[in-house]
Amino acid sequence: MTIQYDGSDFHGWQVQAVGRTVQGDIENALSVIYPDEKITLIGAGRTDAGVHALGLTANVKLPSKLSSNELMQALNGNLNQDIRIDLAEVVEDDFHARFSATAREYEYRFVKVFSPVTRNYTTHLKWEIDKNLLKECAELLHGKHDFTSFCKATAEVENKNCTIFYSNWDESEEKLIFNIKANRFLQHMVRYLAGTMLEVARGRYTISDFKSLLKNKKTEAVVVRAPAHGLFLKKVYYD
Amino acid sequence: MTIQYDGSDFHGWQVQAVGRTVQGDIENALSVIYPDEKITLIGAGRTDAGVHALGLTANVKLPSKLSSNELMQALNGNLNQDIRIDLAEVVEDDFHARFSATAREYEYRFVKVFSPVTRNYTTHLKWEIDKNLLKECAELLHGKHDFTSFCKATAEVENKNCTIFYSNWDESEEKLIFNIKANRFLQHMVRYLAGTMLEVARGRYTISDFKSLLKNKKTEAVVVRAPAHGLFLKKVYYD
Repeated sequence: MTIQYDGSDFHGWQVQAVGRTVQGDIENALSVIYPDEKITLIGAGRTDAGVHALGLTANVKLPSKLSSNELMQALNGNLNQDIRIDLAEVVEDDFHARFSATAREYEYRFVKVFSPVTRNYTTHLKWEIDKNLLKECAELLHGKHDFTSFCKATAEVENKNCTIFYSNWDESEEKLIFNIKANRFLQHMVRYLAGTMLEVARGRYTISDFKSLLKNKKTEAVVVRAPAHGLFLKKVYYD
Repeated sequence: MTIQYDGSDFHGWQVQAVGRTVQGDIENALSVIYPDEKITLIGAGRTDAGVHALGLTANVKLPSKLSSNELMQALNGNLNQDIRIDLAEVVEDDFHARFSATAREYEYRFVKVFSPVTRNYTTHLKWEIDKNLLKECAELLHGKHDFTSFCKATAEVENKNCTIFYSNWDESEEKLIFNIKANRFLQHMVRYLAGTMLEVARGRYTISDFKSLLKNKKTEAVVVRAPAHGLFLKKVYYD
């Protein structure tokens, strides 16, 4: 399924002991439709609390043969308005929303002027920004890098190499949008990248600091995590 | 002052016996700054629960000489993130946010596809719409009319004449936006107008029904009120 959600009221995607989660809400809705089964939803990735999704994918193995459309309608009928299944389709038995994915794309929305109406969907930039420095940082990301510096220290993954296919800042009069597409992302990685690039662009760090972080070399600069609101998981790609 | 707010969590602008209101929140913030005074905020208009404002104006008489900027900063520091004072300025003694206003402008945002992320800031159109009929209705509104049919029956006003300066529907691939500017609006008027125009555009009422309502003539059609979310008070004008 392809899922859209407003992350404002969730403790992120993944089911936790306490707090409302997107995975938890959808699994609860599934348990209303299939009361005798324990169904686990496999998501393509885990978004942090407050992060939104425009097209996160997830898969489930279901016992009965409801059509994709019937399932989607039944789920949407049992979900709150802040989650919406936009598409449901039958996949091969060996499909895995996370492991079969070949790329993910994020969009990070920043605004120059605070507005109550967009406050949960943008991050307000409080300083003057040199957009050329932002663009320079974004270009450095292209290709394969070890993102150890830009991921949660406790992340339990075999390696921290990610290949960045696309990384760019778009600027309009009111907004700055960071777009990034990679084969995979580590925990908090987009937030650390955007937050640290913004530190360069406001003059607190140099491009050289950013390069050192990207090469995991010694530097006094420490990565800065940008706020969750403003970040959207846009799309997950499959072959 | 010029005020922006996200109306989602408010029971509208005007102070009520129960429930959080925009006027109430700002008056509370004022009472923190001026603990010994009872200060009443005079708003240019009253928005319904769930309606947003991008530029509602209001005035207060204050006992001390804080500068406009100091007042604005002190207020913003005491207000929740869903209200923001964008501008504060000194006005003449006879200025009245409501009676001095010469025009108000509203924007009503409708979307063709439901999205969790915009659900509080747009109204989802569930039917196919003939946009030519919408435009035809909007044009009928120009000029001075008695809007008795399009206002809450219990509204206590001397007369129900309003002069419409501008009334138009803009369409893009994803959105339909209704823009309207008038010297004044009656209670629920924009919502009744938009809701009823949409009934014409989806084929439930005819243009002739709409004309009858506008002339307060006998018709079987009854006005329909569009939902509050999606409606924004955009600007209040003064000479």
